Amino acid sequence: MHAALVAATERAGAVIVPLEEADAVIWADPAAVDVFPELMARAGSARWVQLPYAGIENLAPFLDPDRIWTCGKGVYADDCAEWMMTALLSAFRDIPVFARASSWQAQSGRNLLGAKITLLGGGGLAESFLRLIEPWGCDVTVVRRNPRPLPGAARTVTTEDRFEAVAGADAVIVCLALTPETTGIVDARLLASMPDDAWLINIARGAHVVNDDLLAALDAGTIAGAVLDVTDPEPLPDGHPLWDHGNVLITPHVGNTPEMGLPRLAARVEENVRRWRAGEELIGSVDVASGY
Amino acid sequence: MHAALVAATERAGAVIVPLEEADAVIWADPAAVDVFPELMARAGSARWVQLPYAGIENLAPFLDPDRIWTCGKGVYADDCAEWMMTALLSAFRDIPVFARASSWQAQSGRNLLGAKITLLGGGGLAESFLRLIEPWGCDVTVVRRNPRPLPGAARTVTTEDRFEAVAGADAVIVCLALTPETTGIVDARLLASMPDDAWLINIARGAHVVNDDLLAALDAGTIAGAVLDVTDPEPLPDGHPLWDHGNVLITPHVGNTPEMGLPRLAARVEENVRRWRAGEELIGSVDVASGY
Repeated sequence: MHAALVAATERAGAVIVPLEEADAVIWADPAAVDVFPELMARAGSARWVQLPYAGIENLAPFLDPDRIWTCGKGVYADDCAEWMMTALLSAFRDIPVFARASSWQAQSGRNLLGAKITLLGGGGLAESFLRLIEPWGCDVTVVRRNPRPLPGAARTVTTEDRFEAVAGADAVIVCLALTPETTGIVDARLLASMPDDAWLINIARGAHVVNDDLLAALDAGTIAGAVLDVTDPEPLPDGHPLWDHGNVLITPHVGNTPEMGLPRLAARVEENVRRWRAGEELIGSVDVASGY
Repeated sequence: MHAALVAATERAGAVIVPLEEADAVIWADPAAVDVFPELMARAGSARWVQLPYAGIENLAPFLDPDRIWTCGKGVYADDCAEWMMTALLSAFRDIPVFARASSWQAQSGRNLLGAKITLLGGGGLAESFLRLIEPWGCDVTVVRRNPRPLPGAARTVTTEDRFEAVAGADAVIVCLALTPETTGIVDARLLASMPDDAWLINIARGAHVVNDDLLAALDAGTIAGAVLDVTDPEPLPDGHPLWDHGNVLITPHVGNTPEMGLPRLAARVEENVRRWRAGEELIGSVDVASGY
């Protein structure tokens, strides 16, 4: 990853220098939170910092408003939207049931064609997803802070109206940034507002879902099941009760894999370095106050 | 099914009469091959016969060219195309692997976005599939008897060129009618022409695939795996070696389930009865000489 981002930076015409001399920083490791404040302090002359990945909730507390911060938002949207479609189709067409069988099963499955889908989140993932699902003729409701219309969505509503927005859904997909406001947004009340045959799908962060409430809904049969690419904690430990439910499919944070993402992040870094040098607006700027 | 098709026929303004008095016959049971010749002989005045399902290979030997025959071709195309997308995404995103696991797995998966797909067959399923996959930006090659272009396909080639057509594919999907010419079309030579990391997907008929050749390719690792909605024999018996391969996903002929298909078939019957009464061209006419 380091080599790929160095190459991208140099392709855009910039020179790699020690941290203390840098005008800009390309931060490559989202997990190295412990050294982030100290290294940023050393980069005193850096006015722009490019962060990796789209979700930056672990770095958000350390972002000072005096610099320009960009992250990988949008970089991984198409890959994650592809996973969203995979999750929907796998759930609706009973792929986990058939994958686990070693004998011919009874026919089952339902159509995604014409289904009602509710998205919690109206950012880059939602935009990419709406583009991919367009030929399916689905009725898509988007729940977002600002109910600005999105191309391909039948309607957008505010977060306050989320309970009504999931009431008629065949599937509810969480594709939100994780902030203090959205942590635990999938709680007992939201799950209870979903139809008994609706699927919950999470491509965002494990902490968006209250695990105990989800387990209670699964055990009570008040939702059809869940497809989770993110869990809390992550990795989900062996023996966790979510592993025991036949109507839960867990994928190991593969909405976007490093193999898929690195070429896309490198292209974003190259483009942003080029823009930075040309004095143009950067892509993926972070709203420091909002934390994403 | 009988009640739904009677209702559809009556909605179109026709009257249900004994077989011997019928101008037209709506045949509802594709499995009742044994009584088909005798009952058709009794329907001496029927000039048009509507057959169920899209694949009619079991009835084809009994179709006389003096009547107009129509079948359900196209009725199930959207459902089957949805299954084709489900199979592709499940295979590429390793859903069977994750569905079978009860612990956190290593990240894996590849993109359907931008992939190279080869379809064996250029009929209604291919048309519906091309419509659904359009936003993925895939490079789709269609192999068909008459290489007439199809909207959304990068190219169409004739059956003779099928070996070259699968050589660069990430997935090969069989969506052909079963005829003497296409029986066993997926044989050792075709499988050997596919890249080692290509998936075989079959939504057509089990007899399109030579099982022993497929098993040999799977055992030798010369293809990535297979997703099969149809098998030979069907249902696939317990203990069949195809059940033993981790990179094989078998679904029980659910491209289109009866639940999905009946409303669509009833709508087709209603439309064709209406057209028959109005003297208009019928939908889904069978080429008796070709058998589909």
